[in-house]
Amino acid sequence: MTRTVIESKTKTAIIGFDHPFCVIGERINPTGRKILNEELERGDFSRVQADALAQVAAGATVLDINSGAVFSNKMAEDPRYADNNFVEPTLMRELVEKVQEVTDCPLCIDSSVPGALENGLAAAEGRPLLNSVTGEEERLEMVLPLVKKYNVPVVAISNDDTGISEDPDVRFAVAKKIVERAADFGIPAHDIVVDPLVMPIGAMGTAGLQVFTLVRRLREELGVNTTCGASNISFGLPNRHGINNAFLPMAMGAGMTSAIMNPVALPVGPKKLAEKKAEVEAAGIILPADMDDETFCKLFGIGSTLPMAGKEMEAIRAANFLTNNDEGGAAWIRFNKPPSVDGEAGGRGGRRGGRRRRA
Amino acid sequence: MTRTVIESKTKTAIIGFDHPFCVIGERINPTGRKILNEELERGDFSRVQADALAQVAAGATVLDINSGAVFSNKMAEDPRYADNNFVEPTLMRELVEKVQEVTDCPLCIDSSVPGALENGLAAAEGRPLLNSVTGEEERLEMVLPLVKKYNVPVVAISNDDTGISEDPDVRFAVAKKIVERAADFGIPAHDIVVDPLVMPIGAMGTAGLQVFTLVRRLREELGVNTTCGASNISFGLPNRHGINNAFLPMAMGAGMTSAIMNPVALPVGPKKLAEKKAEVEAAGIILPADMDDETFCKLFGIGSTLPMAGKEMEAIRAANFLTNNDEGGAAWIRFNKPPSVDGEAGGRGGRRGGRRRRA
Repeated sequence: MTRTVIESKTKTAIIGFDHPFCVIGERINPTGRKILNEELERGDFSRVQADALAQVAAGATVLDINSGAVFSNKMAEDPRYADNNFVEPTLMRELVEKVQEVTDCPLCIDSSVPGALENGLAAAEGRPLLNSVTGEEERLEMVLPLVKKYNVPVVAISNDDTGISEDPDVRFAVAKKIVERAADFGIPAHDIVVDPLVMPIGAMGTAGLQVFTLVRRLREELGVNTTCGASNISFGLPNRHGINNAFLPMAMGAGMTSAIMNPVALPVGPKKLAEKKAEVEAAGIILPADMDDETFCKLFGIGSTLPMAGKEMEAIRAANFLTNNDEGGAAWIRFNKPPSVDGEAGGRGGRRGGRRRRA
Repeated sequence: MTRTVIESKTKTAIIGFDHPFCVIGERINPTGRKILNEELERGDFSRVQADALAQVAAGATVLDINSGAVFSNKMAEDPRYADNNFVEPTLMRELVEKVQEVTDCPLCIDSSVPGALENGLAAAEGRPLLNSVTGEEERLEMVLPLVKKYNVPVVAISNDDTGISEDPDVRFAVAKKIVERAADFGIPAHDIVVDPLVMPIGAMGTAGLQVFTLVRRLREELGVNTTCGASNISFGLPNRHGINNAFLPMAMGAGMTSAIMNPVALPVGPKKLAEKKAEVEAAGIILPADMDDETFCKLFGIGSTLPMAGKEMEAIRAANFLTNNDEGGAAWIRFNKPPSVDGEAGGRGGRRGGRRRRA
């Protein structure tokens, strides 16, 4: 049975055919997160540390650290900041150190910049996952020596110099080429985690079937573990969680062993709170003056102001059980346990513990 | 591509590899439903008709009609009522007629009693599904001639005279035997819908994997459609919906084409309402005196007092899309459409229409 071992100083995460699905938390990534990007430019890592803890609490067993920030203000003062080869290596080292201050969760070092990958590998304690190599010649020649030097596992994305093929057979061939090239470097297949690339089903109706077929082939023919950017499947569609919640169990049924994803449900923000309070007021309900927002959210069933495990985590935990990777359902039963009477954290993975669930 | 055609007088339901999943509503069944059983004994079919409509509204495209009632009061007066061969044939005809009064949804005639099957077949307009034949010799000899005589499709359950095997290879062999015996009667494989039998994962950790493997083999090797009593997978476990919501997409990913299940969410009852109102009162909230229960349920996010589509239906609709059986996501988008401003029913399948969903 294929097993990919990822380690921090003290903890081990395993991606494997006979292991629970490995959730790689994707939130520590300034791409498309304007506020986080600005905080990083100011040297403020508080949100990074909070995101690290929230993702681990929600069920992530590996944390992806992406250093792809754009420091526009600094750029205006010093043109070197326009070059990611200048920005990312330093930022990656800082990100890794700051995350390691608050959690011993194993890490995934994620950058397109060689210097950032090397600095991340140097700063990470234990055996991080490297993200990523592709089938592009330049990338293969740059990343595989690092993988060998640091003896780490690597995510292999199945595109090459011709781009991302819409033909799944081509994507399989690219994955095969990467595994073979890695073997030339003495890197075993169990240290390659292939991302077969998930297209949005809104744009391509066969996108789901392609992934399921590819995952099965990658597992049966190449013996490798697999991962994906899971939420891409629902891009552009209404009720994205509904699609993701079905996609993840289906991918797991086909043999997918990990995903890079957000395990945390979006906390209820000021706008949603204000809308609900207006609705409640319009219905003629009188609230006590001293009711805090979290109590309000819970009473009116609109979630939580705190980070909680998202519904995708329930789907994954159920699918772990259904693929016989949760012996006797012990994890499922713990996860669905009501919170204890003294308010101690229950099983739902949020900071304040679980909500009672109906069967 | 295998297609099983089920018809009412005016409507066609297709179970098929290239069709959306066929939901066979299971609610019209007095087994384990004490109140319904008593109503049937009194000749009251109002709940049967309401259940028929609610299941169709929630997304059922075939309605199972099971006549397995036990008429204890009548039995005390007339010992013939102790015999299901006496009770069920009459009851089945009545059930079919009453359901056909309110809906033109195709039916599934479900009984262990030969006379009930024959009466159901005679009373049903169109081409109902027959439920069920097994690999037991007596049952094969009794049911297959009926299937041939009425030219209807049939559910084939993969147990035989030795009982239900825990070995999936034996269950496959039983299904194969039924398909071969049917062929001897001139019944084609596309009119056999095999139920590979779903065991509870709480009792057998491999139960899910067994179903997925069996469904794939049944489809690839025998070319037959498949069905199952889906909720059996979560028997005895906490948060059964959580398991079912993952199981159904996984089974569909493996090739399952229908399920006998309840598409309707349990409406909020008086007990739950009272509990929530007590919680609200304890929190110091003052409700307007004239607030009706349905408004209360909606405002406090505890569901509805009316029958609505259950979460399983969302999982199935997502999986239809992900298996490329929802072209362009048209059904998914319609299902997730917010209700229109004038209060017209939206897409969520309830009597009062949908709730707005977050993406």
